Amino acid sequence: MNNEKPLILVVNDDGITAPGIQALISFVKDFGEVIVVAPDKAQSGMGHAITINSTLRLNKFENILGVEAYSCSGTPVDCVKFGTKVVGKNRKIDLVVSGINHGINSSINVIYSGTMSAAVEGSVEGIPSVGFSLDDHSLEANFSVCESIVKDIVGKLLQNNTQEGYCLNVNIPNVSKEEIKGIKVCRQAKAYWDEKFEERKDPYGGSYYWLTGEFVCLDKGDDTDIWALKNNYVSVVPTKFDLTNYDAITVLKKWDGFH
Amino acid sequence: MNNEKPLILVVNDDGITAPGIQALISFVKDFGEVIVVAPDKAQSGMGHAITINSTLRLNKFENILGVEAYSCSGTPVDCVKFGTKVVGKNRKIDLVVSGINHGINSSINVIYSGTMSAAVEGSVEGIPSVGFSLDDHSLEANFSVCESIVKDIVGKLLQNNTQEGYCLNVNIPNVSKEEIKGIKVCRQAKAYWDEKFEERKDPYGGSYYWLTGEFVCLDKGDDTDIWALKNNYVSVVPTKFDLTNYDAITVLKKWDGFH
Repeated sequence: MNNEKPLILVVNDDGITAPGIQALISFVKDFGEVIVVAPDKAQSGMGHAITINSTLRLNKFENILGVEAYSCSGTPVDCVKFGTKVVGKNRKIDLVVSGINHGINSSINVIYSGTMSAAVEGSVEGIPSVGFSLDDHSLEANFSVCESIVKDIVGKLLQNNTQEGYCLNVNIPNVSKEEIKGIKVCRQAKAYWDEKFEERKDPYGGSYYWLTGEFVCLDKGDDTDIWALKNNYVSVVPTKFDLTNYDAITVLKKWDGFH
Repeated sequence: MNNEKPLILVVNDDGITAPGIQALISFVKDFGEVIVVAPDKAQSGMGHAITINSTLRLNKFENILGVEAYSCSGTPVDCVKFGTKVVGKNRKIDLVVSGINHGINSSINVIYSGTMSAAVEGSVEGIPSVGFSLDDHSLEANFSVCESIVKDIVGKLLQNNTQEGYCLNVNIPNVSKEEIKGIKVCRQAKAYWDEKFEERKDPYGGSYYWLTGEFVCLDKGDDTDIWALKNNYVSVVPTKFDLTNYDAITVLKKWDGFH
């Protein structure tokens, strides 16, 4: 870190008016200069979607806690691209901070999560990044337990930002500060959603569906994010955008006609 | 593979009326029983988005080549979930086949791609999966070069489906069959998009943007998908949904206060 104040981009997926992003801004704003680009509406479950088939709007938002802020009509990943290429134009962004998500993003949820996809997009662009999520879906979630954790991890990422593009998935259990046992570096637990589509009838007799489901974790490892959260640890999973299954390369090269 | 005909779910991201999915259905339909669930409109760039904040529609579509087909109002990943949980209810799906995408999905594009996210979703659900993409964006793309490649790879995946949940990202260069040098098993090249937001004015004087960009690949490796495609090979990248950066775990555990 040089002597200039670091430039921090804050994004989320719950939308610019969500309490979680307000809490996050208040926790990080003293670390440097902060710019905010966040969706103008809730964008949960948007994964790594980008807007290429329609237009995008970017609007100056009222100051949040004295910080320059914009709302964007697109996805969380669009917000990161706007932040780095339009709002932060020609300036090096030192850290992308995403969240605080209202609800947990452990295990396979990393792949569906707009919060984490925004953080991953930061690392695709070579910027150290972190997504924070609190295990409480409610709009009235109490983010105070997150303060010291966010400050600790943001401080560490700014100090260690020579490690190009580290991206961390941080999940915080919804317990009191005193009950938190520490910070565990984990792997993503192997788990999935057993979806149910709830079928309903519209007023005209047509069928429509709500996607619901039950989270199923068969992974018994004590080195996973699910284990950490169950045991009142904050989970930190380093996350990457290279989806190559390297172990499979060796196997596939033996398939007839594959080289 | 047992003696029953395999059940194959066909999806895409260009929409159910795209020529690419019609070609794909024609290439795979003799391998077993085929069901199709595809978006009712183009869903490129949707990544791993799912629809959780609004309702979904599923409509029986006219038969395509004699095959049972449905259009879905949601994303490519929603289509896979509908395919496994509603249309293919209580039946084991042997293979998810996605595409054929109009345009390439090599390198970092795997993360933005609806085509590949649909295939990855198949593997999340434990089903061997493959996404096919042809290096030609046009609606008039000639998919005939893909036929023998699709049949070869689908045949192999059905024969080897004891390998739980393998997911392949297959990209096909837009050259004649004779020019294709073979099939290369690769890693995902390290590359990114240098985005430009093209600003325009609406008729009322307001600004809006189109997301555009230039693809930048600094990866010089001859083991990447980009290299393979440039050299007229079909690229096959085995792809996974565990985003854990395992190499980083060791480093992070040494950070003060991290365990």
